[in-house]
Amino acid sequence: MILHDLSAGMHPRRVRIFMAEKGISIERREVDAAGGANALPDFLRLNPLGKLPVLELDDGSAIAESLAICRYLEALHPQPPLMGQTPQGSAHIEMWTLRMDHELSQPIALAFVHSSDFYRGRVEQVPEVAGWARNRALQTMAWLDGELAERSHIAGDDYTLADIVAQCACVLGKAVGLRIPPEMTNLSRWFAQVSARPTARA
Amino acid sequence: MILHDLSAGMHPRRVRIFMAEKGISIERREVDAAGGANALPDFLRLNPLGKLPVLELDDGSAIAESLAICRYLEALHPQPPLMGQTPQGSAHIEMWTLRMDHELSQPIALAFVHSSDFYRGRVEQVPEVAGWARNRALQTMAWLDGELAERSHIAGDDYTLADIVAQCACVLGKAVGLRIPPEMTNLSRWFAQVSARPTARA
Repeated sequence: MILHDLSAGMHPRRVRIFMAEKGISIERREVDAAGGANALPDFLRLNPLGKLPVLELDDGSAIAESLAICRYLEALHPQPPLMGQTPQGSAHIEMWTLRMDHELSQPIALAFVHSSDFYRGRVEQVPEVAGWARNRALQTMAWLDGELAERSHIAGDDYTLADIVAQCACVLGKAVGLRIPPEMTNLSRWFAQVSARPTARA
Repeated sequence: MILHDLSAGMHPRRVRIFMAEKGISIERREVDAAGGANALPDFLRLNPLGKLPVLELDDGSAIAESLAICRYLEALHPQPPLMGQTPQGSAHIEMWTLRMDHELSQPIALAFVHSSDFYRGRVEQVPEVAGWARNRALQTMAWLDGELAERSHIAGDDYTLADIVAQCACVLGKAVGLRIPPEMTNLSRWFAQVSARPTARA
């Protein structure tokens, strides 16, 4: 297998941390997205949307979408479990994973795409989208801060894929002026905790 | 189990069609979202985000997020499979399900939230977000139209959760001025086909 990767990308980082937590080693191939390599035919054959990461399998087929890649790796390497072990436990973790994706990760990504120098001239940047997305990300952070008053991790007592999705969003947030406000002490405590894991720099 | 439902909602419709395809019957409780019942403490105990659908389990716990609910039901009722049967097959279907969620369903939902009378006064409506989301939905439709030149369904030959997510998005699209353009003949053929299934009105 080959992981087509982008070191600075929020979604590729999810997969790298997920792999590191499980001790999985896969050949990595960095894609020069800044240079436009993800828009060339060779890459579009792997993912017509031009997005990273992509896991290329040995039969030549490709899995895109970071959460689908993580689930595939979870099936191949169940230990340690990061997505639950029973239908109900897995559903609870998936609920939180999707909440973190929809309510935190996507608004922060939209704020980045619609305001950063990197995307200027690459996509149509709409300042009002960036502004709306920023507010939405901050609302989610405030809500999460309350949720984390009662438990150590996003989906409960254990570190799971839901934490990985949220921490990667917060890493990108730092680059786009969406740091966790210091008065959100529970969320700040959680972010310090997950950032201190040996896998956080994967 | 109780399915807390919203007849007109795009996400609840996913779960209802999924259940109908499997022949699952669960007690349904319609939530008066127009009247604000989803913002009352009784409902927020089930889902602090106030969103529908929610599957309340017999132990009193709740699963929100339609895709997490579908996966839970797939585990309880594996036949007919709508999410794949092998790690690789499941990953392929999940990839397409997430693409349909991110690239089609969410833009259409954003266009609706930021332009419809229903949401006026309920959320901050940003016209530029609606405009950007409309363009994005139409771009996705054009891409999908090309993809569907080569196969019958979104993820391959079989009807799967990826089709359900896309068809529910297109149903909402009709209400928000985002009908499939008739020149997109492959996508139009697909939508006619999935809409003709006995479960489409679930």
